[in-house]
Amino acid sequence: MAIPQDTTTYHGVSGDVKPTTTALPALGPKEILIKITHTGLCASDLAYIPYGIALGHEGVGTVLAIGSEVTQFAVGDRAGGGYHRNSCGHCSYCLSGQDIWCYERTIFGEKDYGNGTIAGHYVGVETYLHKIPEGLESEHAAPLQCAGATVYNALLGVAKPGERVGIVGIGGLGHLAVQIARKMGAEVVVFSTSQDKEKEAKGFGANEFYLLDEVEKVTKPINTLVVSGNKYPDWDKFLVKNVLARAGTIIPLAAPHDRLNLPAFQLFFDGYNVKSSLVASRRTHDDMLAFCASHDVKPVIERFELSESGIGEAIGKLTANKMRYRGVLVAPE
Amino acid sequence: MAIPQDTTTYHGVSGDVKPTTTALPALGPKEILIKITHTGLCASDLAYIPYGIALGHEGVGTVLAIGSEVTQFAVGDRAGGGYHRNSCGHCSYCLSGQDIWCYERTIFGEKDYGNGTIAGHYVGVETYLHKIPEGLESEHAAPLQCAGATVYNALLGVAKPGERVGIVGIGGLGHLAVQIARKMGAEVVVFSTSQDKEKEAKGFGANEFYLLDEVEKVTKPINTLVVSGNKYPDWDKFLVKNVLARAGTIIPLAAPHDRLNLPAFQLFFDGYNVKSSLVASRRTHDDMLAFCASHDVKPVIERFELSESGIGEAIGKLTANKMRYRGVLVAPE
Repeated sequence: MAIPQDTTTYHGVSGDVKPTTTALPALGPKEILIKITHTGLCASDLAYIPYGIALGHEGVGTVLAIGSEVTQFAVGDRAGGGYHRNSCGHCSYCLSGQDIWCYERTIFGEKDYGNGTIAGHYVGVETYLHKIPEGLESEHAAPLQCAGATVYNALLGVAKPGERVGIVGIGGLGHLAVQIARKMGAEVVVFSTSQDKEKEAKGFGANEFYLLDEVEKVTKPINTLVVSGNKYPDWDKFLVKNVLARAGTIIPLAAPHDRLNLPAFQLFFDGYNVKSSLVASRRTHDDMLAFCASHDVKPVIERFELSESGIGEAIGKLTANKMRYRGVLVAPE
Repeated sequence: MAIPQDTTTYHGVSGDVKPTTTALPALGPKEILIKITHTGLCASDLAYIPYGIALGHEGVGTVLAIGSEVTQFAVGDRAGGGYHRNSCGHCSYCLSGQDIWCYERTIFGEKDYGNGTIAGHYVGVETYLHKIPEGLESEHAAPLQCAGATVYNALLGVAKPGERVGIVGIGGLGHLAVQIARKMGAEVVVFSTSQDKEKEAKGFGANEFYLLDEVEKVTKPINTLVVSGNKYPDWDKFLVKNVLARAGTIIPLAAPHDRLNLPAFQLFFDGYNVKSSLVASRRTHDDMLAFCASHDVKPVIERFELSESGIGEAIGKLTANKMRYRGVLVAPE
């Protein structure tokens, strides 16, 4: 396949998403050039639109070219990623393997955020991109690059045999959380605002289902509560030892424009914890992809064309809270 | 020493603390009878006064008698404890070694709380009491049974070489936290409302000292923030990545009559965690006593007589926030 001189990237322009023709840089020795075939649309992309930065961090595609010192990828391989591309490699986070916390890749317009995966092509350092395991379709692998990594990292160590994991909300993250938690060996308890999600939740692997206004009906306390939606639940209903077991942990997977307001007495005397989780380290990201491939974890997706109109359509559906459950932009053949 | 038929215990009566003569039960096969020589007065005892339950959970004394199957203690040994006496042994917490979370010993008047250590004598199952290491004075060992265990457990795994631990407040818990964190190998940063605590904090081992209204002057971010006082600090001043490093952890050691109200955006995108810690497992409690003995960690104490008037005097000082830093009730010879 011919190596193009430039590609199309997509950015927020006055609130809309518009294409830009961007020159492709000469590949550095450790870099690879990927032709994007599939890229997820994540709710956090919506937050980046006003900042005008290149969108997309759930990209998957085919390696078109490799730098002179690349050893892990060959032309024709499938590669994925997006979040780690700009890690600096020398801050305390990078040095400890937690490069997802690297200051240099901090979002919201800082200079090194670079281009995104909602694009024709993507360039990244090979050690910050991930091979897509055989048996995992690219259209399923795309949303795993952020949503999958987010959920898997949060559940790692808490979703396991003997543990009961509660998941609030069956959406883009929640429907993956149920599958992954169940396949990690936990009992899974879903909380939702909508009774019509029960059948689907159980199809994803949930053992029990409760409406958010009947939380007190939980018969055996859960140990971890993963909050997957963009709204916090009523914490006072959950921070009761018959619902969230003493010493239990809350893991919010999003940041509402709100404050986290917990009852101090229950927090202390019932020993509750709050754990943050943001995407995953590169090691955990690779493990996640292998896990999803071998345990047949698949996001439920809706496909849109990777084009200005397709992106607009996907954003409309996501904004209207009607995406079931992850939008994937597919490059035209 | 003769085995008494009864002893004196102390309970809240209409808001005051009064002595009661209590018959000593026949020892069960696994139980030991301790003559209390020293017992700490903990701020949480004040909360128990209205409930009329027996007070004290920082007891140390001499073993007077042992049950027929006791193997760990001999008459004349020193023993300490108070919090674990009533663990049920069969709930999920007890079975996992986390018996400090046992429902059966839950405070506030539940039937099995039993008598306290602010008493002439104390009876407990030998496996829920702790040997006092040689070289640790009983008057120092007493406050360690709750305050020491609380601080050590909270710091375990977070205070270590390469980590910077912030401690808010130099009080009953804080002055121990500084010593223990430093001797665990961490850099220790103290935050206080009062400039006149600086010299003392540094004497306990603090590397740096800041007033609570100059938190932003921290030059290198801390990784863990232990809140040792009975008031929460202004979280928004601390949840800034230049003060509390990204992925840092808050550990409150008390429950103000308040709510824990955190900024959701910083919590999520800077990956902060909240960890609860309540006293310690029995394993950790033993480790703590050994650590304090070998690293010369000593509470700063004020001595009061273990009598109605001495207890009243100690409570007055504690209530007036004038105790420096732990009150110890000493049994008359």
